[in-house]
Amino acid sequence: MTAPAGQRGRGRPRDPRTDQAILAAALELFTEHGHAGTSIEQIARRAGVGKLTVYRRWGSKDELIAAAVESARGEIPSPGIGDLDGMSYAQISQVIAEALPGSARTLAEPGYRAMLAQVFGSSVTHPGLMAAFWNDHILPRRRTAHLALSRAVDEGVLPPETDIEALIDMTVGAVVYRLLRPEPPDADELLAYLRSVYEQAGMIPRR
Amino acid sequence: MTAPAGQRGRGRPRDPRTDQAILAAALELFTEHGHAGTSIEQIARRAGVGKLTVYRRWGSKDELIAAAVESARGEIPSPGIGDLDGMSYAQISQVIAEALPGSARTLAEPGYRAMLAQVFGSSVTHPGLMAAFWNDHILPRRRTAHLALSRAVDEGVLPPETDIEALIDMTVGAVVYRLLRPEPPDADELLAYLRSVYEQAGMIPRR
Repeated sequence: MTAPAGQRGRGRPRDPRTDQAILAAALELFTEHGHAGTSIEQIARRAGVGKLTVYRRWGSKDELIAAAVESARGEIPSPGIGDLDGMSYAQISQVIAEALPGSARTLAEPGYRAMLAQVFGSSVTHPGLMAAFWNDHILPRRRTAHLALSRAVDEGVLPPETDIEALIDMTVGAVVYRLLRPEPPDADELLAYLRSVYEQAGMIPRR
Repeated sequence: MTAPAGQRGRGRPRDPRTDQAILAAALELFTEHGHAGTSIEQIARRAGVGKLTVYRRWGSKDELIAAAVESARGEIPSPGIGDLDGMSYAQISQVIAEALPGSARTLAEPGYRAMLAQVFGSSVTHPGLMAAFWNDHILPRRRTAHLALSRAVDEGVLPPETDIEALIDMTVGAVVYRLLRPEPPDADELLAYLRSVYEQAGMIPRR
């Protein structure tokens, strides 16, 4: 790792289009071949840049792939916690319900599903990648979910003995599990599935 | 695939110890390197047999790895559906609760967790492997869970609008998700976690 570190020069101005091309190439290659099957050299070649250009920006393959996984996050709509604070359960759950169709479309994309599989697949061999996914894709949504379920308990929609953390894990877990099961859902099937699970969790009211 | 098929001779007597050695080698290599990083040649070498010996038993790497994943299943205790039919919710949930410590021990083993990660990681690139895992590791447990939750609804422990299938996905999903998250649990932590999730699902009564 001495050579790459020595080649870095983080202070110089960077062209954001180069960053984006490298991140897109890294995401594609990781999605297709996983962490073990992807090299910095392949990423540089696909992005049309030299290896040194990559190493100037990211010090290691781990860092670069984690950044690429983070870059895929922007596509999933997620209401921020600031917007929801002070809202009632009915209001928060409506915001969550309205975000579900967009989430279903993104999550049902073959590329997202393939990336998710690679992240989970590398969770034991490369836990840093799962940590990046966890921080960038999951945690912000957990905060929203936590607020919704706390309000549901406060307002008597859910019983006081509700285990909110367990219920959030169960909701996230069910969605990941459904996406990676044989016979993947299309966006409409996934939306129906998300609604069932969110209703069962009390995250949104039953229709 | 013509050559391997021509080499097969499934009628001849087989030494079960050879089968076991090949399955163990396949499971180890798959767990360490994933589907893409494992070859029949490596499996044969680690098992101390020739490639033809492997091909006589399994026609392809896919078949062999699926059989190896299936072979890991026997370690998780699971009450059969036949034992539970005719039991009350209290009786079924007691059987389920008693099986949890054994499940926690097996699931928390680093080897099981690593295998699970590889199975989920190959879910998009090699769906056949996920299908094998699904059929052998998950489905038998789903039937038990379904019976428990149906009884819970029948006896008024859970409300009539309970979405049993969603609740089972949520339970299985949470466990997989917890196992593959950063900072994996040891057997005691996992047992406490299983109890929280099973209680929240209504699979076992709250203590």
